[in-house]
Amino acid sequence: MQKIRLGMVGGGQGAFIGDVHRIASRIDNRFDLVAGALSSDPTRAAESAAELGISADRSYASFADMAIAESAREDGIQAVSIVTPNHLHFPVAKAFLEAGIHVICDKPLTSTLEQAEALVEIAQNSEAMLAVTYNYSGYPMIRQAKEMVSNGMLGNIRLIQVEYAQDWLATSLETSGQKQAAWRTDPAQAGAGGSIGDIGTHAFHLAEFVSGLEAQSLLADLDSFVSGRSLDDNAHILLRYSGGTKGMLWASQIATGKENGLYLRLFGEKAGIEWKQENPNYLIFTPLNEPSQILSRGGAGTSDAIGGIRVPAGHPEGFLEGFANLYQDIADLIQAKGNLSDSLVPTAQDGLRGLQFVDAAVKSNKAGSTWLPI
Amino acid sequence: MQKIRLGMVGGGQGAFIGDVHRIASRIDNRFDLVAGALSSDPTRAAESAAELGISADRSYASFADMAIAESAREDGIQAVSIVTPNHLHFPVAKAFLEAGIHVICDKPLTSTLEQAEALVEIAQNSEAMLAVTYNYSGYPMIRQAKEMVSNGMLGNIRLIQVEYAQDWLATSLETSGQKQAAWRTDPAQAGAGGSIGDIGTHAFHLAEFVSGLEAQSLLADLDSFVSGRSLDDNAHILLRYSGGTKGMLWASQIATGKENGLYLRLFGEKAGIEWKQENPNYLIFTPLNEPSQILSRGGAGTSDAIGGIRVPAGHPEGFLEGFANLYQDIADLIQAKGNLSDSLVPTAQDGLRGLQFVDAAVKSNKAGSTWLPI
Amino acid sequence: MQKIRLGMVGGGQGAFIGDVHRIASRIDNRFDLVAGALSSDPTRAAESAAELGISADRSYASFADMAIAESAREDGIQAVSIVTPNHLHFPVAKAFLEAGIHVICDKPLTSTLEQAEALVEIAQNSEAMLAVTYNYSGYPMIRQAKEMVSNGMLGNIRLIQVEYAQDWLATSLETSGQKQAAWRTDPAQAGAGGSIGDIGTHAFHLAEFVSGLEAQSLLADLDSFVSGRSLDDNAHILLRYSGGTKGMLWASQIATGKENGLYLRLFGEKAGIEWKQENPNYLIFTPLNEPSQILSRGGAGTSDAIGGIRVPAGHPEGFLEGFANLYQDIADLIQAKGNLSDSLVPTAQDGLRGLQFVDAAVKSNKAGSTWLPI
Amino acid sequence: MQKIRLGMVGGGQGAFIGDVHRIASRIDNRFDLVAGALSSDPTRAAESAAELGISADRSYASFADMAIAESAREDGIQAVSIVTPNHLHFPVAKAFLEAGIHVICDKPLTSTLEQAEALVEIAQNSEAMLAVTYNYSGYPMIRQAKEMVSNGMLGNIRLIQVEYAQDWLATSLETSGQKQAAWRTDPAQAGAGGSIGDIGTHAFHLAEFVSGLEAQSLLADLDSFVSGRSLDDNAHILLRYSGGTKGMLWASQIATGKENGLYLRLFGEKAGIEWKQENPNYLIFTPLNEPSQILSRGGAGTSDAIGGIRVPAGHPEGFLEGFANLYQDIADLIQAKGNLSDSLVPTAQDGLRGLQFVDAAVKSNKAGSTWLPI
Repeated sequence: MQKIRLGMVGGGQGAFIGDVHRIASRIDNRFDLVAGALSSDPTRAAESAAELGISADRSYASFADMAIAESAREDGIQAVSIVTPNHLHFPVAKAFLEAGIHVICDKPLTSTLEQAEALVEIAQNSEAMLAVTYNYSGYPMIRQAKEMVSNGMLGNIRLIQVEYAQDWLATSLETSGQKQAAWRTDPAQAGAGGSIGDIGTHAFHLAEFVSGLEAQSLLADLDSFVSGRSLDDNAHILLRYSGGTKGMLWASQIATGKENGLYLRLFGEKAGIEWKQENPNYLIFTPLNEPSQILSRGGAGTSDAIGGIRVPAGHPEGFLEGFANLYQDIADLIQAKGNLSDSLVPTAQDGLRGLQFVDAAVKSNKAGSTWLPI
Repeated sequence: MQKIRLGMVGGGQGAFIGDVHRIASRIDNRFDLVAGALSSDPTRAAESAAELGISADRSYASFADMAIAESAREDGIQAVSIVTPNHLHFPVAKAFLEAGIHVICDKPLTSTLEQAEALVEIAQNSEAMLAVTYNYSGYPMIRQAKEMVSNGMLGNIRLIQVEYAQDWLATSLETSGQKQAAWRTDPAQAGAGGSIGDIGTHAFHLAEFVSGLEAQSLLADLDSFVSGRSLDDNAHILLRYSGGTKGMLWASQIATGKENGLYLRLFGEKAGIEWKQENPNYLIFTPLNEPSQILSRGGAGTSDAIGGIRVPAGHPEGFLEGFANLYQDIADLIQAKGNLSDSLVPTAQDGLRGLQFVDAAVKSNKAGSTWLPI
Repeated sequence: MQKIRLGMVGGGQGAFIGDVHRIASRIDNRFDLVAGALSSDPTRAAESAAELGISADRSYASFADMAIAESAREDGIQAVSIVTPNHLHFPVAKAFLEAGIHVICDKPLTSTLEQAEALVEIAQNSEAMLAVTYNYSGYPMIRQAKEMVSNGMLGNIRLIQVEYAQDWLATSLETSGQKQAAWRTDPAQAGAGGSIGDIGTHAFHLAEFVSGLEAQSLLADLDSFVSGRSLDDNAHILLRYSGGTKGMLWASQIATGKENGLYLRLFGEKAGIEWKQENPNYLIFTPLNEPSQILSRGGAGTSDAIGGIRVPAGHPEGFLEGFANLYQDIADLIQAKGNLSDSLVPTAQDGLRGLQFVDAAVKSNKAGSTWLPI
Repeated sequence: MQKIRLGMVGGGQGAFIGDVHRIASRIDNRFDLVAGALSSDPTRAAESAAELGISADRSYASFADMAIAESAREDGIQAVSIVTPNHLHFPVAKAFLEAGIHVICDKPLTSTLEQAEALVEIAQNSEAMLAVTYNYSGYPMIRQAKEMVSNGMLGNIRLIQVEYAQDWLATSLETSGQKQAAWRTDPAQAGAGGSIGDIGTHAFHLAEFVSGLEAQSLLADLDSFVSGRSLDDNAHILLRYSGGTKGMLWASQIATGKENGLYLRLFGEKAGIEWKQENPNYLIFTPLNEPSQILSRGGAGTSDAIGGIRVPAGHPEGFLEGFANLYQDIADLIQAKGNLSDSLVPTAQDGLRGLQFVDAAVKSNKAGSTWLPI
């Protein structure tokens, strides 16, 4: 099968998420990384490209040049991955969409709500698609959960409890020169949300994705526990979903002892379900008045339809494979000229939801924790 | 050693919590149950007493008669356990305290805030003491956690995340004739709180008990998911503690798949800790930037001072032993004529806190989820 | 209900297992401890008796005197608990059985195989019964497992994997003055087995108890890893059961990091099951080609018939309650004049099996690990 | 960096392990798959090659032709992955080694001991290296464990308990047409070992790899529980290692309810360690008389030296990444012209150990479970 020609913006030497996208794109052998504007620093861009086997003539100093040049080539890239800090997502995505090149954008979609709204419109008017890598939705057992909810196995959902707790910002890491910490705690680069933007949006997306419900309003209590930090590093949020479902969402980057504690629970009239990202191959499913069941990725009682399984039950797949499932779906869509909204891949609209969530949370907090629509 | 003469009000045949108190009082051989007003139904009271080896002349038809008669006897009871539905806690406790008999009262302390306030005053003016069985505080690893917080091992506490989730009221059990469900969902017998009163108060007490902090305000979103139910069966609550600590509290009796999911986590500047009631002999302790440690009841790295350990590490103790630890402490206090407030045993003041919590939660919810002082 | 008059031999101040038996006998309020020969040291015996509320005239300096005197009294004890070091089990049990008093004997039944054989015969000829406290068989989820096997839910059992691993003898504790370690590592007091006698017999009993199968032969590799120790502190054993079932048994007291790691797994043609003593309220049950189920003590999918449950699912019961279940069953049998062999309580025959197991293991090991009948 | 030119023998459409090797080779972008003899069926070979982007002229009908042709090309493959059924490992490996092409061979090394001995010699005489994919040794936490043992953190190792339990052959799957089951239960294709060859060798390798000890003798009890099966489907094995260390090894493919239950435990004089393949990012480490520690892949307290970590602690990596770590190491060795025996990658000698283990186990079992040297 022909591989898809892929480009990348951001993700030069020393970057974290760029490498994750590259591995994800390689795992299933569906993409060839052939072009890049890997860094705003031209030397680093060139060196990074060389390391990745991108030919020098397709290593660009500017994403704008890259969009123009690649769209002009016969063998130009078909898709681009955007793995820059948040504030660049908008202009880069805009440039490539307008050049007719599919966009795979890391989350959050943009750093402001206005940009997100604009980008949704740009995406709607483009032939190209815009996918947002809410990568946790690529975990097979998350998709299994979504299917079970959708099949009515939980009945009406009453509660959604979701949390994403880390501790890597429990001290003032951003003042120590750590690059990841620096941009993620800087409003100019990260946007209005700290922990809510960086990880809260993941939790929010999973809640809506698995439940199939829309969060209609929220009430937030945000904190910056580390002295001198301007963005939130902890968020306590109450949520009200369509149909009377209630929820709590907790996002924290100062929860001492937590590494990547993304934990999702849904409680319906007929059954409850729970899933933990740190051991993601299992789902606990408890029908009312029956024993709990441990569903294992690819194991008995799981759906064949969810796909994205490479090794048998009992051989764990992890973060990278979950991420790769999005790339695999995107490859399918590109090659079949399919419609993103018919797939499980998060769209610009999902990205916009994230920004709406951050915006509402920041405003609710400022207003002293009041209910606000999302 | 002389055993303490104990009476009981409530807890006749078919009752649940009465039996728990009796087992707890027997485990360490410190009490003799010698008198009772075990039921408002005279036949059931007499039969229950006979079964328990209480002599007929000390089986009373009314608690008021019992308080008078026992206080008049040379060999009258020294303490009474109150295990009636909530609305009777106040008059019974009042009667025995005024008779100079120590009171061991199940929680919540009373069914209204006003009664709780009155009872605190009565207790202050009595020679007798009033203990409230927030029994989860008797678990050794909870006491271990409290000691570690108090020793500064966690540093300043930033977050307290606590939840108590059950599913036994996920359907309208109260209309099926189930006695426990019936009174616990009836405002006349249970008071203003449903799940917040029944289990939320436990979670609230543990948070304050372990952290040593006072919850100063809360914001609540309460629900009655089961149709026809007048009291809350789910509570989503945000909390602000003294010193800037923030918290979430979730209490639910409709969380499908949860049996007694009491789960406490504290995150400090220096370390985090977590504990689960369903496997209560372990505590996960994670100093910042160190591996997590699994502390085992009675095992390496735990404090000898916390007491209440009967069998070595690796041999689990459970709910009843945790409950018995309160009875053991109360026996020590009675025999040493000690002061309840110098012990770890919950007091009338702790009971009042519970009612203040319920009252504030109900009011906050009615006001559309606003911050209210506790 | 009338309580059963109980005596105790051994278990004076400082003893461990004596206190466990006493708590177990009290939990369900079925026994009154009224007589004892609590220590071979008369002062300690008297002081221990006083502490326990045993009247001075029923505190005996010798078990032989006690058997005679108590059997002569109108209100003499109906049963006696034997909690001495192993080498005294035989003479004490003999004395009381011959006096017509029921015996509740800690395991192993005796310290030699010959004694065990003799005791089985004595018990058969006595009106009184002899129960052996293989206490782990009192855990409700062990009984649940036995019932499921017996109901055919696992199909024919192919494999039994059982282990009991501790680490408390990983160093030469016996030379430090620790009393428990001293007698348990001394052949004169403990018998021919070290770890196999002390904990291996528990594992062996559980395997036969739950499976309903008889172990027919074994092959053993025993070690004394701690220098200067004469009894085994680690045992690796292969087993062959009736009907072609195979098994492994591992007992160790030098397994660094293990507290009381008793772990039982059975694999049948139709399903597998596993249970861990350290979190004993759960059983994992996996029918072939179905998801694993988590069965919870007293919870959905468990049998009402197994009894011995005091608090609802999700409120853990532990070691002491499991132990108490044996006392409860014994009380039922005494009062109903029932037959021990119709109950789940381990008998002299079960005790003899333990000695046969130890004897065969020691001989197999000496012969260089050969298969020997049990 | 230049990529290594890789070929593959076996692994055509429908194969399992071929795809695993390919993904593992791609994850870190170090290899280019450019040639193959993917199937003994020419049509399938050609179609499989086309699917994988291998040009038609480098898709070979025979591995012998491939070895000759590729070694003759300027741009010929530098390494070949052998992913055929076991009985072909020997001739294929021989052909490529003799052609001076590095060999990455799936385990077991060969299907007979004689072949393995011959292959070790061939490898010693070749400029090319022969690596064996005992892939579990690529898991970072296994390497962490090895390093801790080697650093003396466990002290002298007393016990090694290892098991690998599956249930996929609990029924006669091989008679149902399932290809994997068919060849793995066929002595002609799989060799003398069933479960011991397929998964027991993995367990055996891990035990030696992590402990750094050599297993000197074993005693085995093997079974074929499924009627009509000629190779073992369950193996109970006792082991004696150099220096007095003892061990148990259990391999089973009929352990109902187990998916890939590879479980390794080492107990030393100073500490114990345990690891489970199904949640491989964690290691439990318990120093004697200290609390257990949970070490997390890439987390606090782990060694930087072990490498093979792509995403931060708390983001799980799985089976494929562990496998990829071997490929990464092999790539490093090829490019640095390093020596396999200086690396952590399993060698022909390790492969030979596996065959010696299988041979000794089969013979011990036939002799009625006697100790035999390995």
